[in-house]
Amino acid sequence: MRKTKFILVLLTFTALAGFKSDQNKPSIEAGLFKISVMYPGGQGKTFDMDYYEKSHMPMMAGFLGKNLKFYEIDKGLSGRTPNDEPPFVAACAFYCYNVADYNQAVGKNIDTILKDIKKYTNIQPVIFISEIKQVK
Amino acid sequence: MRKTKFILVLLTFTALAGFKSDQNKPSIEAGLFKISVMYPGGQGKTFDMDYYEKSHMPMMAGFLGKNLKFYEIDKGLSGRTPNDEPPFVAACAFYCYNVADYNQAVGKNIDTILKDIKKYTNIQPVIFISEIKQVK
Repeated sequence: MRKTKFILVLLTFTALAGFKSDQNKPSIEAGLFKISVMYPGGQGKTFDMDYYEKSHMPMMAGFLGKNLKFYEIDKGLSGRTPNDEPPFVAACAFYCYNVADYNQAVGKNIDTILKDIKKYTNIQPVIFISEIKQVK
Repeated sequence: MRKTKFILVLLTFTALAGFKSDQNKPSIEAGLFKISVMYPGGQGKTFDMDYYEKSHMPMMAGFLGKNLKFYEIDKGLSGRTPNDEPPFVAACAFYCYNVADYNQAVGKNIDTILKDIKKYTNIQPVIFISEIKQVK
């Protein structure tokens, strides 16, 4: 009996460990909504990636709460060919369960958000809200 | 001894099952490269999502091979506010391990790709290559 119990405990632990590692990996799936915020570069345009990563985005995640599955921060590398300038110097994507809740959370905190944006960039971002149709 | 073997087999199976479910969920991580292809809408612009999902994207995945971790297809919903037209009617993102290999694969098959694009759209897409800096 003792052995059986030990085994059951071990199995449960293994299953839980597997479950946890699954949860920790942000995964994309169809049906999620994606809010892409993309910052076009150009003469005189500035973007402080450090502030964006360490302050702005965590603040945004706090505003979005449980509606946010995860977010992704991107650094622009190039356009169509390796020699083309990237259309955006930086970008982010919020993967959310619900668009209405996203809009509500942003609307509620818009003054704080706009004030904070000035701390890291002088760029007017392009905002693209989309539905994830397929992931393969 | 028999029991111990049985348990080991069971544990191995559990571990493998956990590993498999992890592998099947496309997950994003820092260090990956993302090739975003975004199709701006407008008067007279057309986009056949069905052909894109069923023919074009699987063909692209074949060209990219193991360098492609996964791809995502997006349908444009809106811009900054729910009433703004989306800047893009559709978009996709290829999540790859290596940009040089992506460029090489596309270069090698560019004639086939350009010919196939005409089958689903008359839009000239915006291409944005970026590095994923952070996922949270």
